Amino acid sequence: MVDMSDDFSAPENGFQAIRFDGRCLELLDQRVLPVRESWLSVDHVDGVIDAIADLVVRGAPAIGITAAYGAVIAAHQRVGDIRAWRGDLNRLESARPTAVNLSWAIARMRRVMESADGPDPEVLLAEARAIHREDIAANRTMAELGSEQIDAGSGVLTHCNTGSLATGGIGTALGVIMAAARKGRTTAIYADETRPWLQGSRLTAWELARAGIEARVIVEGAAAALMAAGRVQWVITGSDRIAANGDVVNKIGTYSLAVLARQHGARFMVVAPTSTVDPLMASGDQVAIEQRDPSEIWRAAGMQNAPDGFLAWNPVFDVTPAELVDCIVTEQGVFTPPYSFRMAEKGRG
Amino acid sequence: MVDMSDDFSAPENGFQAIRFDGRCLELLDQRVLPVRESWLSVDHVDGVIDAIADLVVRGAPAIGITAAYGAVIAAHQRVGDIRAWRGDLNRLESARPTAVNLSWAIARMRRVMESADGPDPEVLLAEARAIHREDIAANRTMAELGSEQIDAGSGVLTHCNTGSLATGGIGTALGVIMAAARKGRTTAIYADETRPWLQGSRLTAWELARAGIEARVIVEGAAAALMAAGRVQWVITGSDRIAANGDVVNKIGTYSLAVLARQHGARFMVVAPTSTVDPLMASGDQVAIEQRDPSEIWRAAGMQNAPDGFLAWNPVFDVTPAELVDCIVTEQGVFTPPYSFRMAEKGRG
Repeated sequence: MVDMSDDFSAPENGFQAIRFDGRCLELLDQRVLPVRESWLSVDHVDGVIDAIADLVVRGAPAIGITAAYGAVIAAHQRVGDIRAWRGDLNRLESARPTAVNLSWAIARMRRVMESADGPDPEVLLAEARAIHREDIAANRTMAELGSEQIDAGSGVLTHCNTGSLATGGIGTALGVIMAAARKGRTTAIYADETRPWLQGSRLTAWELARAGIEARVIVEGAAAALMAAGRVQWVITGSDRIAANGDVVNKIGTYSLAVLARQHGARFMVVAPTSTVDPLMASGDQVAIEQRDPSEIWRAAGMQNAPDGFLAWNPVFDVTPAELVDCIVTEQGVFTPPYSFRMAEKGRG
Repeated sequence: MVDMSDDFSAPENGFQAIRFDGRCLELLDQRVLPVRESWLSVDHVDGVIDAIADLVVRGAPAIGITAAYGAVIAAHQRVGDIRAWRGDLNRLESARPTAVNLSWAIARMRRVMESADGPDPEVLLAEARAIHREDIAANRTMAELGSEQIDAGSGVLTHCNTGSLATGGIGTALGVIMAAARKGRTTAIYADETRPWLQGSRLTAWELARAGIEARVIVEGAAAALMAAGRVQWVITGSDRIAANGDVVNKIGTYSLAVLARQHGARFMVVAPTSTVDPLMASGDQVAIEQRDPSEIWRAAGMQNAPDGFLAWNPVFDVTPAELVDCIVTEQGVFTPPYSFRMAEKGRG
């Protein structure tokens, strides 16, 4: 029997942007926040794939959880047809290329149906809920471990969105920052607006305001000047994939912050569950970086029409070399250089 | 007699975004480019002040030229009243605080009326046209000098807008880049979109497309990854004020690019007429940095409403220390460290 006693929406679990009643997935549409709080209901697997590809849901752990629920929905559609169900999972896995949490979650869902003739929705639901529940717990552990690294009197800068909207629980980097703020250790919190999608000004600012924590948005070009003014002691980000050597793949702009932090004597912390670690990827230069359509750059800036002759270089992620990362916080502990993530640390037992 | 034979709109003078018939100033409204080419007509000094403050016209040299024409307009309004005219010039000078070209141009206009009882529109028009004409010539000289610094096979990244929209002629940094492109020395041209006002994607991309030169826009967070990929050999920007020691005040985000360029073995060139040099400012830390309203950050990103609890740190400029600047190109030559700009180099007689 599926344990239905989980209360994912308990306050200590953070705000829940992914809700699943066993049949229908409800996703808070992150494309229109903070202007509108609009929920998208999805009850077929193609809708889940589109929601991931179109950024209704984003954030590596949240994508993994969504895909796991998508595998349950697919099981309801593909009664007795394990082959068709496996095809659905392949398509779910391909919805976005970079976040390893997506293929990690799909691999878990595949594994519980390894020798089945038809997909079993109840078994799959239990596994999807386990993935979600483990992420909530990992978030809580990381927030505690990470916030302990931050000395009182620290200014903190974060990038993109890594809170409840990006995870199953209270978040990764943003969970650490909120915990540090509640412990009175932060003097100021700054959120990079994070172009082109503005996850910082749209989502992180919204989450911090919702939690009653004061923060300031900056344009990315201002980060270096902010550091030169001595206002930043820690840069804290999440990750979409961490290589075995500790190279960090994350939202475009992260590498820039890591270089600038090192130049200005600020420290750089990465917060991510072990599901983000890819021990099969030796170093960051092996990752496939997703390139998205140039139109995102002008459309997300409120321009209706592209300027004539508009071309762009629009990678979604960049790679921060491990030597610029002062610590990596997972639910298994605080790691410092030299990094060497092996299979066992993934808890893939 | 005023020399009316100047043809400011000759092709070699660049696109003219500032037109003055002696009475009425026409300004291409840079706030709505590239979506609309809309011209604003101004025939009173308050309108000129508003146009500068509200960014209808921006770019340090362009602001100086606009203010000079504004002093002519004020003279028509203040017949025989030198005191009122001088008050208008004080207000013109205060329209924006950082660009030194503004106070430099106003000082020139004041000087030709030093011992007058009433402002003389004809003398003032001659001086304003001289300022405009000298900027066109300086642009052309800088384009030639700067482009000669660029080796064939160079990838170039620029920031903000420094072309015809920002100057009286073909531009400063963008003039150099266009000249280098025409000489076949560039392999790729990248324009930082430059938040919050997007001068890169709105104005620089528009100018390059208009000139038939291929270029790509990037979000600012992508600059470091672009450099790490070996695609940038030169970062080339303009400046709003250059201190005597060579510290460069320019659009927020410039300092970030200078740090990143040095880290990645790219060179950093600043292109600005001597009117941008402020020999009275010993170093960049003495400059007053304009802070603008936080609403610009979300409004220029197409958001209609600010997220609840929205705060921001929104400086318009930053200071790049001279030691990160590989060369400064003015119309008087190519300067390299150590920099020491004195009064004489300003050509202030």
